[in-house]
Amino acid sequence: MTEKIIIGIDPGTNVTGYGVISVVKKKMTLLCIDELILHKLDSHALKLKKVFEKTLSLIDTYHPDELAIEEPFYAKNVQSMLKLGRAQGVAMAAGLLREIPITEYLPKKVKMSITGNGNASKEQVAGMLKTLLNLNEFPTKYLDASDGLALAVCHFLNNGINASKGTKKSYTGWSSFVKNNPKRIDK
Amino acid sequence: MTEKIIIGIDPGTNVTGYGVISVVKKKMTLLCIDELILHKLDSHALKLKKVFEKTLSLIDTYHPDELAIEEPFYAKNVQSMLKLGRAQGVAMAAGLLREIPITEYLPKKVKMSITGNGNASKEQVAGMLKTLLNLNEFPTKYLDASDGLALAVCHFLNNGINASKGTKKSYTGWSSFVKNNPKRIDK
Repeated sequence: MTEKIIIGIDPGTNVTGYGVISVVKKKMTLLCIDELILHKLDSHALKLKKVFEKTLSLIDTYHPDELAIEEPFYAKNVQSMLKLGRAQGVAMAAGLLREIPITEYLPKKVKMSITGNGNASKEQVAGMLKTLLNLNEFPTKYLDASDGLALAVCHFLNNGINASKGTKKSYTGWSSFVKNNPKRIDK
Repeated sequence: MTEKIIIGIDPGTNVTGYGVISVVKKKMTLLCIDELILHKLDSHALKLKKVFEKTLSLIDTYHPDELAIEEPFYAKNVQSMLKLGRAQGVAMAAGLLREIPITEYLPKKVKMSITGNGNASKEQVAGMLKTLLNLNEFPTKYLDASDGLALAVCHFLNNGINASKGTKKSYTGWSSFVKNNPKRIDK
C-alpha cells in the first residue's frame, strides 16, 4: 500500500506554521502540526535561518513526497513583501535542496478547497480539518499553525479525489498568475 | 599569509550577477565575474532553483569566508518585491546551509564605497572596479554582473582599509533599517 507524505508550510517572519499528513489510499492521517514563533527574534537573518533549518529538518524527519506552500499576492507594503518573499525563498530552497516538488496555493484556494468558501475564517478551516483528519479535537492553540496543515490537506484534495472539482492550482509561475489575475496586481 | 575569499551576489529573477574576489593583505584579486541569465525561463520556480544552485555551487567552488548580498528597499510593486525577496531568500539559504556569514548592503552604499558617489552609474562603478582590481579591461558584457562583484569589493572596503570612513553597513535586521530609514519605507 503506497503511502504519500505531504508537508504544508506557510512561511512568515513572525510565525511560520506547518503541518504534515500521511495519505494511504484516500485516507489522510495527521503526523504533525506546529508553528515556529519568530516575532521575538531581533534579527531578520536569524528568522530566515530558523525558517530554513525548520523546513529542512521537517523534510529530513518526514521524507515528504511533496511540499505545498502559500502563494501570497499582497502585503501591507513592499518591505513586508520582501520579508515574506525571503521567508518563502529559504523554505523553498530547503525543498529544492532535497529535490521535493513544490506546489503553491493562493490562500483563497486553500479555504475554498477545504471549506467550499474562499472567505472562510480560520475557525471554519480548523473545523473542517478536524473532520477531514478525523481528530477528536483541533487544538485552538494551533490556529495559526493550521494554515500550514491546511496547505497540505488542500494539496491532497486538489491532486486526489477532488481534482475534478476544478480547484487545482498548479504551479505555473508568476507570468501566468499575472495574466490570470489582472485585478490582483498592484501596478 | 592569510587569504580571504568574498563572494558578492545580486540575486534577481531576470539576471543574477556575481563576483568573487580573493584578498591577501590589502590586495584584491578577481577570481570570477559572471551572470546567470534567467529572463528566458518561463517558470518562477525554475529561476529560484537556478539561483539557489548557482549560489551553492559558487560557495562549494570558492569556499568563501564571507558573502555580500544586495539589500534593496524598493521595487516597482509588491509582486516584484516578492519575486526579488524569494530570489534573495534562496541565495541566502545557500549561505545559511554552508554557514557562511552574510552581510547586506544597500545599492547606494555600494556605489558610495566604490566611487565616492552614491548615485554613480554602472559604467563609473565598473571603471573603479577595474582600477581597484588592477584589470587591463573591464569587460562591458559584464556590466550587469558588475553589481555582484561591486558587492564583494564593497564588503572588503567596509571591513578593511576603509572601515573608518563610516561607510560600513552591518547587517542589523529590518527593525533597525526601518528605524534608521523612516522616509524610505512605503507605509
